[in-house]
Amino acid sequence: MATDRTAYLALASLATPGNRELGNLIRSTGPALALDRLLHGSDLSPELTEAVNARLSAAGRASARVDRIADGMLRRAEQLGARIVTPADEEWPASLHDLTQISSHDDNPIRRDTDPPLCLWLRGPQRLDVTLQRSVSVVGARAATGYGASVASEFAYGLAERGWTVVSGGALGIDVTAHRGALAARGSTVAVLACGIDRAYPAANAAVLEQIGAEGLLVTEWPPGTQPQKAQFLARNRIIAATTRGTVMVEAGSRSGARNTLACARLLQRAAMVVPGPTTSAMSVGCHIELRQPDTVLVTRVEEIIEEIGSVNQPAPTGHRPYEVLDALQARILDAVQPHRATRAEQIAAAAGVSDRDARRTLPLLADLGLVIAGPNGYRRAGEPPAVHRERG
Amino acid sequence: MATDRTAYLALASLATPGNRELGNLIRSTGPALALDRLLHGSDLSPELTEAVNARLSAAGRASARVDRIADGMLRRAEQLGARIVTPADEEWPASLHDLTQISSHDDNPIRRDTDPPLCLWLRGPQRLDVTLQRSVSVVGARAATGYGASVASEFAYGLAERGWTVVSGGALGIDVTAHRGALAARGSTVAVLACGIDRAYPAANAAVLEQIGAEGLLVTEWPPGTQPQKAQFLARNRIIAATTRGTVMVEAGSRSGARNTLACARLLQRAAMVVPGPTTSAMSVGCHIELRQPDTVLVTRVEEIIEEIGSVNQPAPTGHRPYEVLDALQARILDAVQPHRATRAEQIAAAAGVSDRDARRTLPLLADLGLVIAGPNGYRRAGEPPAVHRERG
Repeated sequence: MATDRTAYLALASLATPGNRELGNLIRSTGPALALDRLLHGSDLSPELTEAVNARLSAAGRASARVDRIADGMLRRAEQLGARIVTPADEEWPASLHDLTQISSHDDNPIRRDTDPPLCLWLRGPQRLDVTLQRSVSVVGARAATGYGASVASEFAYGLAERGWTVVSGGALGIDVTAHRGALAARGSTVAVLACGIDRAYPAANAAVLEQIGAEGLLVTEWPPGTQPQKAQFLARNRIIAATTRGTVMVEAGSRSGARNTLACARLLQRAAMVVPGPTTSAMSVGCHIELRQPDTVLVTRVEEIIEEIGSVNQPAPTGHRPYEVLDALQARILDAVQPHRATRAEQIAAAAGVSDRDARRTLPLLADLGLVIAGPNGYRRAGEPPAVHRERG
Repeated sequence: MATDRTAYLALASLATPGNRELGNLIRSTGPALALDRLLHGSDLSPELTEAVNARLSAAGRASARVDRIADGMLRRAEQLGARIVTPADEEWPASLHDLTQISSHDDNPIRRDTDPPLCLWLRGPQRLDVTLQRSVSVVGARAATGYGASVASEFAYGLAERGWTVVSGGALGIDVTAHRGALAARGSTVAVLACGIDRAYPAANAAVLEQIGAEGLLVTEWPPGTQPQKAQFLARNRIIAATTRGTVMVEAGSRSGARNTLACARLLQRAAMVVPGPTTSAMSVGCHIELRQPDTVLVTRVEEIIEEIGSVNQPAPTGHRPYEVLDALQARILDAVQPHRATRAEQIAAAAGVSDRDARRTLPLLADLGLVIAGPNGYRRAGEPPAVHRERG
C-alpha cells in the first residue's frame, strides 16, 4: 500500500481541489485506503466516480499506478525548482484544517467545495508552516487607486517590519503592492496563485513573482501548466483566508473577488479587517458594504491590525478549538491514542477502557476534528510525526 | 403664583442651562413651585443657591420679581423678531425630555449638566416641534475638506428633498454646508446656536444664518447678547443630538466637537452614523475612531441614513419608552390623571381607587418620566395642553 504522502499526491491528481466527499473519505479511512477506494470506485457518489474516471482516462489508464503518478509529480516539481507538500508532511500548515468547518450548505460565498487542499506546490526558500504561523493577508482590487496602493504598501511594509508574513494573491493592484511592501522591508511574503507554479500570471508581475519565489514563497494547489480561471481564483481565496490570522481588505469594488476572501476569513472566524476610503471612490464601495456587516473591523493603521491578530509570538488563534468541544468519552479515547505509532481501534479501546464500539465510533470523529490521523494501520495523534517511517519526499 | 410658562422663563434666567438639580426639582413640584423654592433658597444645594444668587445680584435684586423677568425676556424677543418657547408650550419638542436619561455620572461625553433646556429662543417661520419630528443632524469639522463638504452637501440636499429637516450647528465647514444643501433643496433646516439669537456667529456665515432665520429656524437656549464659548458648544450639542432621530458625522478630526454630538446621540439611543474617508485624511481620523466603536453605523448614501432613522411618516423612535416600564399601580394612577385639567393627588387617588400615599409617591415618578406635568394645582397629562388657560406668549 502507498505511503500517506504518495497517496495524497495521487489523490490530488485525481480529484478537483476542495472536494468535500473525498476529504471526508480521507479523514475517515486515511489517504491510502481512500485512494484505494477512489481507484476501485466503491461506495463513491456518481459525481466523484465520474470526475476520477475523467482524470484517469485523460492521464491514460496506465498511469493510474499510484507510484508513477506521484513520481511524475515529484519529477516535474524538481524540474521547475519547486517542491510539493502534503498533509502527511511536517511543513503542512495545520490552519488549513479549519476549512473543513465551512459547510458547503452554509451561506458559502465561495459557492464550491471548500475542503482543504490535498497538496501544495511551493517555490521559495521559506518553510511553509513556520512562515504562515505569523501571517496576515492583505488583499484588494486589481484596479487599485493611488490611495489604495499607498495604504497597501504602507501596511505591508509595517507588518513585515514587525515580523509578520504578508500573504496575498500575486494579482495586479493591491495584491502586488502588498507583496512589494513586504519585500521592501526585507520581510516575508507569500503569494498564493490560482495557476500552475510554472506560470507567471499576470505577466506584468513576472519580475516580482520571480523575486517572491526567490525570497519568500509561491504557493499553489494547481498542477504545473494550469492556466488561471475564475473558479480557481475563488478556490485560491480560501487558502489565503485559512492560512492567515486575518485578512485586510484595502480596496474593493462592489464585485471584487477580495470580498470573497474576506467573507471566507469571517466564516473561518479569522479577523476580517477593512480599510475605509472616500464614499466617492468606486474602489471603496466593496469596503463600505463589508464595513456595514457584523464581525468586520475598520482599520486605518498597522497597530490596529495587530490589535486584531495578536502578537507574532502568540500561538495563532484559530476559529477551531476542538479540545473544548470534546465530551469525557471522546477525551478519554483521544488520550489513549499513541503519538508516534498508529494503533488499531481495538487496542485504543483497551487502553482507554472503553468498548470497541465506542472507540470505532469516536475515532473517525476525532480524525474529522484533526486531532488524530487515520492510516492503514490504525490511528495516531495529529501534529506528531510518525517515529519510524518519516513520510517525506 | 406664576403660570408655568412665566415660571419657566424666570427659571431659565436664574440657572445655568442643563442644571440637573433644578430639572429634578421642576419635575417633582412643577415649575411654579420650583421657582418659589429657587427664589427663597430653601432645600437647595449650596451650588445652586450660589448660582441663583449670582444671577439675581447681576440682574439687580429688584428684577427678581418673576413677572418682570419674564416680561423683559418677551419684550427682548419681540425686538429681535424672535419668540421663546418653554416646556409649557405646545411647540416644545417632546424629544428633549430624553436628555433626563443621560446621567451626569455616566460616561458622559458632555462633561457637564445635561438636563433639557428650560426655554428656547427661536427665529424663523417653522413650528419647532413639527419641524423636528422628522429631523436628522448632519455635523462635522469646521476645517472640512472638499470631500467632506461635497458629501455633507449631497446628504443634506437628499435628506431635505425627501422631507427631512436637516439640523446642524451653523458653524463653518460641514455644518454650514449641510444647511446650504437643505436650503438648496427648498427643504427645512434648523441651526442650533451656542450664542444669543442676536449674534451672527461665525460672521462668515451671517448671510446663511439670516436665510435660515427667514426660511427655517434658528434655535438657542442662550439669552440675547451671549457670546459663544467652548462649554456652550458642548451644551448645544446635546440639543442637536436629542431633537433629531440620528446624527450623521461627515468629517471630524480626532478632537472634533462633532464627536461629542455623536457620542451624545449614542447615549440617547439615537442612530449614530458616520461617513468614512481616506485613512490619510486628518479630517477623517475622528470618523474612523468612532466607526471602531459599537453602535455606530457606516453610511455612504442618503438611503443608508434613512434605513437607520425610519420613514418621515413613522413616529420618531425615542430611546425612552416609559409605558413599557410602568407597573400595574403606576399605569392605573396614570390612567386617572386628567388630560387637560390639573388635579390634586388626592382626587387622582380617588379616581384610580388607590391610597393617597400611593398616589403621592407615584405621581412625582410619572412626572419624572415625562408622563404627567406637575403644577401648582396638581397634575395633568403631559403632551396635552391645558384646556382653559393656554400658556403661550
